Amino acid sequence: MSLERKNKRFGLVPTAGLAVFLAGVALPALAQDVPTLSEEAFEHSKEIYFQQCAGCHGVLRKGATGKNLEPAWKKTAADGTVTEGGTLKLGQERLEKIISFGTEGGMNNFSDIMTEQEIKDMATYIQMTPPKPPEWSLEQMKASRKVYVDPADYPTEPLHGRNWENFFVVIERDVGKVAIIDGDTKEVLVHIPTGYAVHVIKASEHHNVEHMENPGRFWYTMGRDGKMTKIDLWQTPDKMLVAEVDIAHDARDVSISGDGKYVIGGGYWPPHFVIADAVTMEPLKVVSTRGVNVDGNYVEEARVAAIYTTPNEPTFLVAVKELGQMWQVDYTDLDNLRIEMINSAKFLHDGFFDTTGRYFQIAANASNKMVVVDTKERKLEAMIDVGALPHPGPGANWDDPNCGPVAGTTHLGEGTVTVWGNDPEGHADQAWKVCYTVETDGPGLFVRTHPKSKYVWADQTKHPDPEVQQSIQVIDKATGEIAKTIQITDEEGSAAVHFEFNADGTEVWVSKWNLKDSKEPNGQMVIFDAETLEEKARIDGLFAPTGKFNVYNRTNHVT
Amino acid sequence: MSLERKNKRFGLVPTAGLAVFLAGVALPALAQDVPTLSEEAFEHSKEIYFQQCAGCHGVLRKGATGKNLEPAWKKTAADGTVTEGGTLKLGQERLEKIISFGTEGGMNNFSDIMTEQEIKDMATYIQMTPPKPPEWSLEQMKASRKVYVDPADYPTEPLHGRNWENFFVVIERDVGKVAIIDGDTKEVLVHIPTGYAVHVIKASEHHNVEHMENPGRFWYTMGRDGKMTKIDLWQTPDKMLVAEVDIAHDARDVSISGDGKYVIGGGYWPPHFVIADAVTMEPLKVVSTRGVNVDGNYVEEARVAAIYTTPNEPTFLVAVKELGQMWQVDYTDLDNLRIEMINSAKFLHDGFFDTTGRYFQIAANASNKMVVVDTKERKLEAMIDVGALPHPGPGANWDDPNCGPVAGTTHLGEGTVTVWGNDPEGHADQAWKVCYTVETDGPGLFVRTHPKSKYVWADQTKHPDPEVQQSIQVIDKATGEIAKTIQITDEEGSAAVHFEFNADGTEVWVSKWNLKDSKEPNGQMVIFDAETLEEKARIDGLFAPTGKFNVYNRTNHVT
Repeated sequence: MSLERKNKRFGLVPTAGLAVFLAGVALPALAQDVPTLSEEAFEHSKEIYFQQCAGCHGVLRKGATGKNLEPAWKKTAADGTVTEGGTLKLGQERLEKIISFGTEGGMNNFSDIMTEQEIKDMATYIQMTPPKPPEWSLEQMKASRKVYVDPADYPTEPLHGRNWENFFVVIERDVGKVAIIDGDTKEVLVHIPTGYAVHVIKASEHHNVEHMENPGRFWYTMGRDGKMTKIDLWQTPDKMLVAEVDIAHDARDVSISGDGKYVIGGGYWPPHFVIADAVTMEPLKVVSTRGVNVDGNYVEEARVAAIYTTPNEPTFLVAVKELGQMWQVDYTDLDNLRIEMINSAKFLHDGFFDTTGRYFQIAANASNKMVVVDTKERKLEAMIDVGALPHPGPGANWDDPNCGPVAGTTHLGEGTVTVWGNDPEGHADQAWKVCYTVETDGPGLFVRTHPKSKYVWADQTKHPDPEVQQSIQVIDKATGEIAKTIQITDEEGSAAVHFEFNADGTEVWVSKWNLKDSKEPNGQMVIFDAETLEEKARIDGLFAPTGKFNVYNRTNHVT
Repeated sequence: MSLERKNKRFGLVPTAGLAVFLAGVALPALAQDVPTLSEEAFEHSKEIYFQQCAGCHGVLRKGATGKNLEPAWKKTAADGTVTEGGTLKLGQERLEKIISFGTEGGMNNFSDIMTEQEIKDMATYIQMTPPKPPEWSLEQMKASRKVYVDPADYPTEPLHGRNWENFFVVIERDVGKVAIIDGDTKEVLVHIPTGYAVHVIKASEHHNVEHMENPGRFWYTMGRDGKMTKIDLWQTPDKMLVAEVDIAHDARDVSISGDGKYVIGGGYWPPHFVIADAVTMEPLKVVSTRGVNVDGNYVEEARVAAIYTTPNEPTFLVAVKELGQMWQVDYTDLDNLRIEMINSAKFLHDGFFDTTGRYFQIAANASNKMVVVDTKERKLEAMIDVGALPHPGPGANWDDPNCGPVAGTTHLGEGTVTVWGNDPEGHADQAWKVCYTVETDGPGLFVRTHPKSKYVWADQTKHPDPEVQQSIQVIDKATGEIAKTIQITDEEGSAAVHFEFNADGTEVWVSKWNLKDSKEPNGQMVIFDAETLEEKARIDGLFAPTGKFNVYNRTNHVT
């Protein structure tokens, strides 16, 4: 439903006029040489491109984690060296093969995701001029806001009598919903309609400096279509969705200020972030992230990959992916907005705080680095060389017998968990250096632990072999060795992904997820005893569940 | 002064002529409907457009001080109201007339600046898709740098034995040079080649907090073509040009950090600012100013109108014209760059500090406001409603018998000098309120005074009547009345513009300037006794002189 709405406004802005000025650049060919599609095929390809390709290659196709896919590009270095390329040079046949079978550079095969005709059309589509999506103004955002429950009518205590601090908020990606599960009773209370393919959900968190009432009560989701929704866990399940607003055409992340006053959403397109009133969801402020990257080149599609609220400072951390910059945005005065633009490395993705809340550790995946920001000094603290394409997701912090406080990440590009020291005050010698690495069976997306647990859990979702995808690794904190490998399913097309502990740290929840787009409730939550590692329960009836967020843990920075 | 040429208002009256509300005309959809030009005529028009039109209308023609000049534009408000317009709707004939004769909205006539054929071609050119100029990367900037004198070979004392602190650095706009004049002897020492149509020149200034050696020795110019040059006043005249670097394709302003380490240049296109090493001129850092304006709309052509160094803080003030934002940029850590984005009003132009150096007063000309920034708190202090299109240039600060410390501005849109209180500590009641206004004979560009002077000087360069253009007004600080009107020339095509005092405040220098592009040395510096107001001397042999900068006054913030 939300996808249809999205496509209506994801219109085409002609960019053909650009050719006029670019007199010096060899733009290939006359109009009749460029392959074309029927309007229907063009629109369908545009939709698939947006869903499947834009994340890595960008809507303008200038590339990021993926390669440049412009019809023709030409780069002139300062010394005069010219490099040329483009999809027109690669041609229809070669492009179809790449889309079908993937590349050794890390691109998936799409032969089992797209039909043969869709692959043909996509090969043609990417030889055509990229349609530039329209802007999205503050005024348009304001007009898109919908209030389902007036803040004046919010309940003053939980209406359902449940232990809401052990609720799990679960992303059901392919149906554009989030499920609320009672962690005590394992009941699925509701599937709340949100934006399309929600990427991240954040709670109003406990803040170390400023005070807010009832942290964890309100949850905010960000759909890939830029719809930001607000959920009130004190409501009866049918009324938990209280408000929504569209802050972009394409988006990923959201966060809530420590004082609970503001919610911030980050756009992929337009490349910007938006600060809204967290109570009313009224958008207040838009800041563009288009800018000049760490190499000194202007990037139009400089996307907001991740946004976090710093636990000890009145600031947001905005990861501007293509710029290789972390922007620390002070929310105490929106009219005189202070930003520290912190140079690091490309392309920034997702990260997590250390246990003190001072240091933020984020993957710069194309640089194979973990970037560390000191949020107290508002500057770069360190960059750590790690394996190929680090991807920590919510990350994990624990105490190592040799290195003291450490943190770890999985990688998209290799089956490794990298562990580094992260206590510069107490263990300066080990800080921001690799302590050890653990070899797993394949590249993964997420790593997770809990202060009470002896183990660190890592998935292997990015390995092509189904058996590996379906298996997770449990690493012993004491030895740094794998204690157990658990295959959670052998169902075709299903994989294990993402972990979350329950509120008291006695259970670990893992998603049994459908790799292919699924509108059926055949996903599961698989629950393990955190101590014995034995399976304890399964929750059925979930629609392609991916990330899940325990209210208590996320609110209190338990990582 | 005769009443009939008094005070013609140029302000915000919408012109009936610009028929942007023509409704119901379908946009020409086919290529053959759009007028075209030969390549030669297109390139020639592009060049004229860049020189004569882009300043007000923007290279992308979305408008700023001038109107939107896109072939076809369409705005949809949040409530669904659609407004359409564009040059295609106006058509060839109407456009030619507007270009030839100007508009009541404040646009000049160009019939005596462009030939008939050039006007025809321009009318066609602006119906075509605006060519988008290319980007300009840090690497390209670095490659453009030229060093004429190695810093290791800089002299350790002045080589010419002159009183260099009373030198005047004079812009010779139409020949792309600056003249150095010995203020003691009135000799023109040299014409130094710089960028095209230098807009502003800045010295390494005395800074109230950080120390630098020999403030005023080095001068930096910014050409409209983005060439930033460095001048060393200790050299012999033939060697004063020591280095240059291209920081943009189109630019306006430049400034030097208080510690003398950095020079910053602001680009119109690409819209960005560049921080370079002030010693070597090596570019170090580029920051894009494309962004979201105070109304919440994205602006690609968000140009850097003015840049100043704050006397008391280690920061630059960057006026981002179309955003209506002042960016206070901290230069103590370029890798973790702190910026306060201070919301004010559109369109920011040029400004000046109060005598304490804490408050910066800048014109937001389309809003008819003077904007005041508190550089200590790094936030907006006030906005003052003034006359049509304020334009203070270097501005003027003095003591008023009733209001205490005050400042004043001329206006592009009316013959008024507006005077406001600017001492919130000592005269809170008068601070940031209009103290009084002085009616002159016509709109002007510049106002200026000196602490030792009893008078404030104002020009009237923007009035169409030659006699008014050639006359300047001398206002008595004690009464707020005009003490004397002085016509400096009656030569056709010449006007009086811009003031500067000499180092000891005994002389006032006024430019006799050619309104039309002039490559001949027929401009003059007309020098008055600051006390008696009698003419004292003329300096000949200058090429269309406009702004002039006395070393001592500019280095020591004498305004």
